[in-house]
Amino acid sequence: MKFIDLDKTESFAALQALFPVELRTILNEQRIRSSQIPLGGDLIYNYSAMPVEEEHLKVLCDLAEEQEVIEKYKELLSGQVMNPGENRLVLHQLTRKNALKDNIVIADSTDKEAFYSQQLEKVYEFASKVREKKIVGSTGKPFTTVVQIGIGGSDLGPRAMYLAMEGWAQGEGIETIDARFISNVDPDDAKQVLQDADIESTLFILVSKSGTTQETLTNFELVKKTMEEKRIAGFDSSRHLVAVTSNTSPLASSDDVMDAFYIDDYIGGRYSSTSAVGALVLSLAFGKEVVSQFLEGAHEADIRALETDPLKNGALLDALIGVYLRNVLNMPTTAILPYSQALSRFPAHLQQLDMESNGKSVNREGKSIHYPTGPIIFGEPGTNGQHSFYQLLHQGTDSIPLQFIGFKENQRKYDIETEGSTSQDKLLANLIAQIVAFALGKEDENGNKRFSGNRFSSLIYGSRLTPKNLGALLAHYENKVMFQGFIWNINSFDQEGVQLGKVLAKKVLSGAQGDTILRSFMKILL
Amino acid sequence: MKFIDLDKTESFAALQALFPVELRTILNEQRIRSSQIPLGGDLIYNYSAMPVEEEHLKVLCDLAEEQEVIEKYKELLSGQVMNPGENRLVLHQLTRKNALKDNIVIADSTDKEAFYSQQLEKVYEFASKVREKKIVGSTGKPFTTVVQIGIGGSDLGPRAMYLAMEGWAQGEGIETIDARFISNVDPDDAKQVLQDADIESTLFILVSKSGTTQETLTNFELVKKTMEEKRIAGFDSSRHLVAVTSNTSPLASSDDVMDAFYIDDYIGGRYSSTSAVGALVLSLAFGKEVVSQFLEGAHEADIRALETDPLKNGALLDALIGVYLRNVLNMPTTAILPYSQALSRFPAHLQQLDMESNGKSVNREGKSIHYPTGPIIFGEPGTNGQHSFYQLLHQGTDSIPLQFIGFKENQRKYDIETEGSTSQDKLLANLIAQIVAFALGKEDENGNKRFSGNRFSSLIYGSRLTPKNLGALLAHYENKVMFQGFIWNINSFDQEGVQLGKVLAKKVLSGAQGDTILRSFMKILL
Repeated sequence: MKFIDLDKTESFAALQALFPVELRTILNEQRIRSSQIPLGGDLIYNYSAMPVEEEHLKVLCDLAEEQEVIEKYKELLSGQVMNPGENRLVLHQLTRKNALKDNIVIADSTDKEAFYSQQLEKVYEFASKVREKKIVGSTGKPFTTVVQIGIGGSDLGPRAMYLAMEGWAQGEGIETIDARFISNVDPDDAKQVLQDADIESTLFILVSKSGTTQETLTNFELVKKTMEEKRIAGFDSSRHLVAVTSNTSPLASSDDVMDAFYIDDYIGGRYSSTSAVGALVLSLAFGKEVVSQFLEGAHEADIRALETDPLKNGALLDALIGVYLRNVLNMPTTAILPYSQALSRFPAHLQQLDMESNGKSVNREGKSIHYPTGPIIFGEPGTNGQHSFYQLLHQGTDSIPLQFIGFKENQRKYDIETEGSTSQDKLLANLIAQIVAFALGKEDENGNKRFSGNRFSSLIYGSRLTPKNLGALLAHYENKVMFQGFIWNINSFDQEGVQLGKVLAKKVLSGAQGDTILRSFMKILL
Repeated sequence: MKFIDLDKTESFAALQALFPVELRTILNEQRIRSSQIPLGGDLIYNYSAMPVEEEHLKVLCDLAEEQEVIEKYKELLSGQVMNPGENRLVLHQLTRKNALKDNIVIADSTDKEAFYSQQLEKVYEFASKVREKKIVGSTGKPFTTVVQIGIGGSDLGPRAMYLAMEGWAQGEGIETIDARFISNVDPDDAKQVLQDADIESTLFILVSKSGTTQETLTNFELVKKTMEEKRIAGFDSSRHLVAVTSNTSPLASSDDVMDAFYIDDYIGGRYSSTSAVGALVLSLAFGKEVVSQFLEGAHEADIRALETDPLKNGALLDALIGVYLRNVLNMPTTAILPYSQALSRFPAHLQQLDMESNGKSVNREGKSIHYPTGPIIFGEPGTNGQHSFYQLLHQGTDSIPLQFIGFKENQRKYDIETEGSTSQDKLLANLIAQIVAFALGKEDENGNKRFSGNRFSSLIYGSRLTPKNLGALLAHYENKVMFQGFIWNINSFDQEGVQLGKVLAKKVLSGAQGDTILRSFMKILL
């Protein structure tokens, strides 16, 4: 296996030599129908409105081969150290079942698949007991709310997944336990959640792999303080607290919590939605069958991502086209536009997933690289975004690649027909209209009403946003980001860029003696 | 008054000729203390970590003068047609009181300040009656929830403002009526809000200036359908519905609503938070005194924005530095990073405000321009963002200018001390640490632990996020965006870029006969 910087590859030079394509010259019925790849669940990736013709695809396929992208994915799945910065294995795919047949990953003298699977079973068992009211609060009340305390990957992914499943579960008549989340060290965040909570019927999940995350431990103390202030007779806070942490963390053996579920160093925070970090809160909220479908969808996407031909591997092709947009067409941003209100926080999750993984300036060996890496990710659900920032997307001076997501049916099975169409019809009509408006534009004598078009988009769509499709969608993006990391020859699995701020914040809190710049800001703010 | 494209000005040429500054060579105690401008309320704009020295500031001041920025603002305030695309006046500042002394704006034979003021009084009176339970639901229950139905500017701004005031009001012990929002045409959005609502004690506000917005009217029908399905004896839906609309809209005289509050064509949706669009829901939620402070803060910022010297005018200097970053340093994105959970949706509001206003490629006369205009705006509250996309901000290949926002005190007056500091202390320590980490970076032999620094940020801070400070913050950004539009010589007040999508969506809904491309997407999605 070789690790080469992108700009040292032959296929990158070939890619740069290709002529750019005008979308309006290539977009047609046949292309729309044939530019599709299944992703897992019943999701389809359609790249017909991306500026790639046969010759581009050919070079992109060469690039995937030259960068040994699938081989690297297999190495990762088989337990090689693919996070060299931290000298760690990368095993988040293993939390949803082994994607490589007959592959056993042993680390720290442990069969890792067995370990994750045991933790998942433990999660399921605990969640079932809570849902069946066999485990209840310390004063005898059943748990009706669960509050996850965590930040970053312990918050964004699980929260986005919860919001994405809630409507579906309600549409299916599944009994749900409400989930809330506390993340920010700003005390206003915790207070807002706590003031509405009936503490006696609330279960708190404390999530911190290291057991040392400043925000999470501080909010843990704030939660305990609130509990004590209520002075409820017979109330025992430890029976309202569980932890998700590593088995070596101080939390794992703390008397403050009634139980602990384990993750390990091989699951990065932003990749932890399918580990106990996500599975516990989701199992409590919706039940284990729902989570099991979610994991199955992710597993299907992992399997499909093993396909060596990029034209049959949606995550890989999405990654390759992204590299073409970023490194040849010089587009620094990507918008994520889900036409599904349930995905309201999915772009925020992808912001972390992508920007924390691939926002890097050095290669795997720590040497500077000289080409752009991870793009800036932002987005809001359509049709809301249409009435907001789409103006710039249509007529701004910069061209921004778009990733649309849509589903044929809504989640909650409640709709209305007005003027001959349902709301769901209107939603999808808008989605289709936008893809075409961006691609083709419109000429007009009045410059203000002119749309240049040739603005690129892809579309991921499925029948409905079910837990299985959600799992496939999540894993699609995880795998896309991983593939891009391989192509850019960077380590997508560490995050050294968050360290300096932590060090300086501690310095501020201890007075920052002698540091005139920190102290100058302290004078105006503290 | 002259309207010149930026690249035709002398000062722009001078700006391009300046050498870029390395932050670490200029950031010091004196600079941090002196690079400050009051914005209104007790907010301060600190630009010490922006790459501008005396010579840059001098040329930026020349640019402001050459583009007659303050004169144009005065023209706008005095009622000139500053939205040439739609041949309209631009009067949102007038909703919070006249910023120009002895200035009377007459349009459509109406004194516009008197008109907005009358509508505001009507809003206050209605809200007071609801809050005092003189107006109650049709079955006699007081209103405990208000649901705003609107999209774009009728949603993002009011929602962001509501969330930004909620914690403060609760911290002050002010009785609040809960507000919810329905915006997306996705029926899952309305259903989620409606299923939790006790219809008998819910008041709905329908907001659409034209009275024809597809999403809003559809959701209005969906709300009425839900009401009917409940079959509550004595229930009268019209007594649960009010409208905010223009006085010529069909809604203004509809029997479906019990009352209507007026706006007009001179208030763009994204600038409407201080008109009845925002004032009604906020007055209902928090009372008229709170809204009055909010408007007062915005008015103070409007007054301060009249200062001709950019070094005493924070909105103008923020605009000018933004133009330097965008057009000379070629930075296409700006991140908004509020260290206050209450501002969780403020970046989403700014995304609309900025990107819809200045995402344009033609000048005021509809002629193509050849320089970048409005940037892409994104952001999430700190410290959450630190555990998410900050990795890319610190170590990514692109440098992204940052706008930090912070407050000395929290909103809810609830905090905890752990390890010698409160949560609020930790929040601010992190904010300070980030500014300095971005500005100065850190050398390291290990490339993976190296921080290049020289990443630019500004800081807006105040004592606490009060309604008055919130109003000043909102108006600061409105005025900044307006000033940038003047400098770029574009029309910041129309949004032709949203039209094409609307037209094509209608085409899809009526079958799109003969349009093979629309129909091809319809085949796969509908």
